[in-house]
Amino acid sequence: MKAYVYVSLKKSVLDPQGKTIQGALTKMGYQGVEDVRQGKFFEVTLDGKLGRDAAQAEVERIAREVLTNPVIEDFRYSLED
Amino acid sequence: MKAYVYVSLKKSVLDPQGKTIQGALTKMGYQGVEDVRQGKFFEVTLDGKLGRDAAQAEVERIAREVLTNPVIEDFRYSLED
Repeated sequence: MKAYVYVSLKKSVLDPQGKTIQGALTKMGYQGVEDVRQGKFFEVTLDGKLGRDAAQAEVERIAREVLTNPVIEDFRYSLED
Repeated sequence: MKAYVYVSLKKSVLDPQGKTIQGALTKMGYQGVEDVRQGKFFEVTLDGKLGRDAAQAEVERIAREVLTNPVIEDFRYSLED
């Protein structure tokens, strides 16, 4: 089973890296780009020993306690068989 | 319209950062984690001037030409209204 955890900066937090990419894209001539924000994701492969509910709980715990800085970041996750 | 571009290391490329996270999670007592790979994503906000097809083409071009290093990375993207 695989879990995907997506971590992004909160809307209220400035993202200078994203702004730089947006500026570069516009300068390079790409059309229609209004804003860019960068985040990271984690592809977590789980061994089959946990049931789906247990796996989901564990992934949520990992995402909240380890992968995300709750002061400046939000996360979402999805599970896939 | 928003586009999400997900960039990940190719399967054949080692991911020491992911390995480190996996080792840390196991040491911290989290269960069932077999492997972790890290990637990044970009949330691209497009102005409404481009039609859906043009927007899709532009996002694919940006992903392929700017956001991804084709030697070591793959990308996928999705569009959202």
